[in-house]
Amino acid sequence: MAATQKTQSTHRQHRHDEAVMADLVRYTALSFATPFPVPFGAAILDSRTGALLYRGRNAVKRENDPSAHAETRAVRKACQKLGRPSLKGYTLYTTCEPCPMCMSNALWAGVDRVVYGATIADAAVHCRQIHIPAREVSGRSDMTCGMDGEVARELCKGLFEHPRMRKAFKTWGTRRP
Amino acid sequence: MAATQKTQSTHRQHRHDEAVMADLVRYTALSFATPFPVPFGAAILDSRTGALLYRGRNAVKRENDPSAHAETRAVRKACQKLGRPSLKGYTLYTTCEPCPMCMSNALWAGVDRVVYGATIADAAVHCRQIHIPAREVSGRSDMTCGMDGEVARELCKGLFEHPRMRKAFKTWGTRRP
Repeated sequence: MAATQKTQSTHRQHRHDEAVMADLVRYTALSFATPFPVPFGAAILDSRTGALLYRGRNAVKRENDPSAHAETRAVRKACQKLGRPSLKGYTLYTTCEPCPMCMSNALWAGVDRVVYGATIADAAVHCRQIHIPAREVSGRSDMTCGMDGEVARELCKGLFEHPRMRKAFKTWGTRRP
Repeated sequence: MAATQKTQSTHRQHRHDEAVMADLVRYTALSFATPFPVPFGAAILDSRTGALLYRGRNAVKRENDPSAHAETRAVRKACQKLGRPSLKGYTLYTTCEPCPMCMSNALWAGVDRVVYGATIADAAVHCRQIHIPAREVSGRSDMTCGMDGEVARELCKGLFEHPRMRKAFKTWGTRRP
């Protein structure tokens, strides 16, 4: 009975994660109508209630800041909202597996869990990457962090394939030669 | 003769690196007289002329930003000064080996070279860490970046041992249990 309850709870969480991710994909796609199209979006939600604390997109070019990946920027803005450098009690959703910068930042911030869509390998088709899986970064740290990957992965991969995005990638400093 | 010239040039660069690092240690130690003592300082210098572009310290607690490690914050501020998200043509000096967040950020920024003092293992004595060497992060990326480590390491380790710093570590969220 306890095992069944746990399975039901896991299924419920997975459905919730998929719904949050679908919403985040729609939000991220709004960038395609702006001068800075990006396939990377991130959201910080209360782990218990699911309430949204902050949602944003990659702003490296817009803000001239190499650390303004969607995840690291969202963590920064969320921490500013809370007035503390910790996101204990919160979950980070992101349309793409966090690079080692963003995963390390999530660990330093102490988020409860990371949920991602597309993988680093999916992104590497379009731009240069650092090939260290988020799970490895977490596993080699002194911190603990839950992780669920490849949630709505195909939907997230679709962001990379949008015609506006394929054109924009060609102007990126990290584009494939 | 060409080999001798190269050796002389390497020696000259090493002496320059040591002088920059000693200066950075003095600057970082100034934090011990402030409400936010930190052992982590970083400087961005023009790779060719050695001119200082930006110098700063870790500000995680001061700015409530988990990404405000000395290196990532210095890269951000330097990019804002230049009005571009790239530090090609610049070298990053840091009193401690960059964590995977900061090393990844340096790669995304495209710095020419990273020069560090103390090691991640040295820092891990005092606070939690992510145990992936900076050289490994660089080696597993699609980018290239020079690296020189353990420059003035003992001087940099001294920053961790200062009585003000040892007391401050006890209040850090990442302190050792």
